[in-house]
Amino acid sequence: MEIERKFLVTSDAYQQEAASSIRIAQGFLSTDPQRTVRVRIMGNQGFLTVKGASNASGTSRFEWETEISAAEATNLIDLCKDVILEKVRFMVPLGDHVFEVDEFLGENKGLVVAEVELQHEDEFFERPSWLGEEVTGQKEYYNSQLSQKPFTEW
Amino acid sequence: MEIERKFLVTSDAYQQEAASSIRIAQGFLSTDPQRTVRVRIMGNQGFLTVKGASNASGTSRFEWETEISAAEATNLIDLCKDVILEKVRFMVPLGDHVFEVDEFLGENKGLVVAEVELQHEDEFFERPSWLGEEVTGQKEYYNSQLSQKPFTEW
Repeated sequence: MEIERKFLVTSDAYQQEAASSIRIAQGFLSTDPQRTVRVRIMGNQGFLTVKGASNASGTSRFEWETEISAAEATNLIDLCKDVILEKVRFMVPLGDHVFEVDEFLGENKGLVVAEVELQHEDEFFERPSWLGEEVTGQKEYYNSQLSQKPFTEW
Repeated sequence: MEIERKFLVTSDAYQQEAASSIRIAQGFLSTDPQRTVRVRIMGNQGFLTVKGASNASGTSRFEWETEISAAEATNLIDLCKDVILEKVRFMVPLGDHVFEVDEFLGENKGLVVAEVELQHEDEFFERPSWLGEEVTGQKEYYNSQLSQKPFTEW
């Protein structure tokens, strides 16, 4: 189970606070919210990830992932449906947590979201100055949905 | 690419000719013919397999597979849609080839199909006495379709 909260971002100050950034391309073999199947290329690594349905609050979801080669991931991305998502991910440490800030490119350009992974639903975390409205559980912000209905078409 | 031909079976003589047999349970995270995602438990091994679209004759299809643990496969099968397929597979060597004969159980009981994997579309293979009508490329015999519309409902 993965517990995550997701927020909009109100300024680009996170870029100065980031410890690292990496480019990500990803597509979906299934966008069914009950059984999403994602193919990701991150740097020179590939990943295949399966996610189950979210709980009622949208914070928690079964997640299973296996690393594959970037070459295998490239072949599998060619099979994916809809739009291939491209984004730059900034890793921003703050207190006991690391915020993952995704700057989308291409058909989702203009969208920036921050996620923080928690051990428990109600865990305290320090809020960076640029953290905006919470969008946890809002399906239109799921990456699987952004591949079907990208941000520039909203 | 995987090149395969599929046939119905006219008697149970294959059981005497089999070198081995193994029980298989499998489900689908995606049954989209362009990007099928299959989870399989075979003996004490697990597999995750992605298949692309078939060519026009239905003999050839992109296939990618990774081995996973049986425990991981069990978790992923719990996420699968529709019916979980159960079958016993008999491996029947003949000449230069091995026929895989699948005896379906449960909601597909009564269905028996044999597959032979080839290196080339037009490769010669010896035909066993029990080999019946060819059903290569007939979508209703795809395992992904049998999970949605099982044989006992035909």
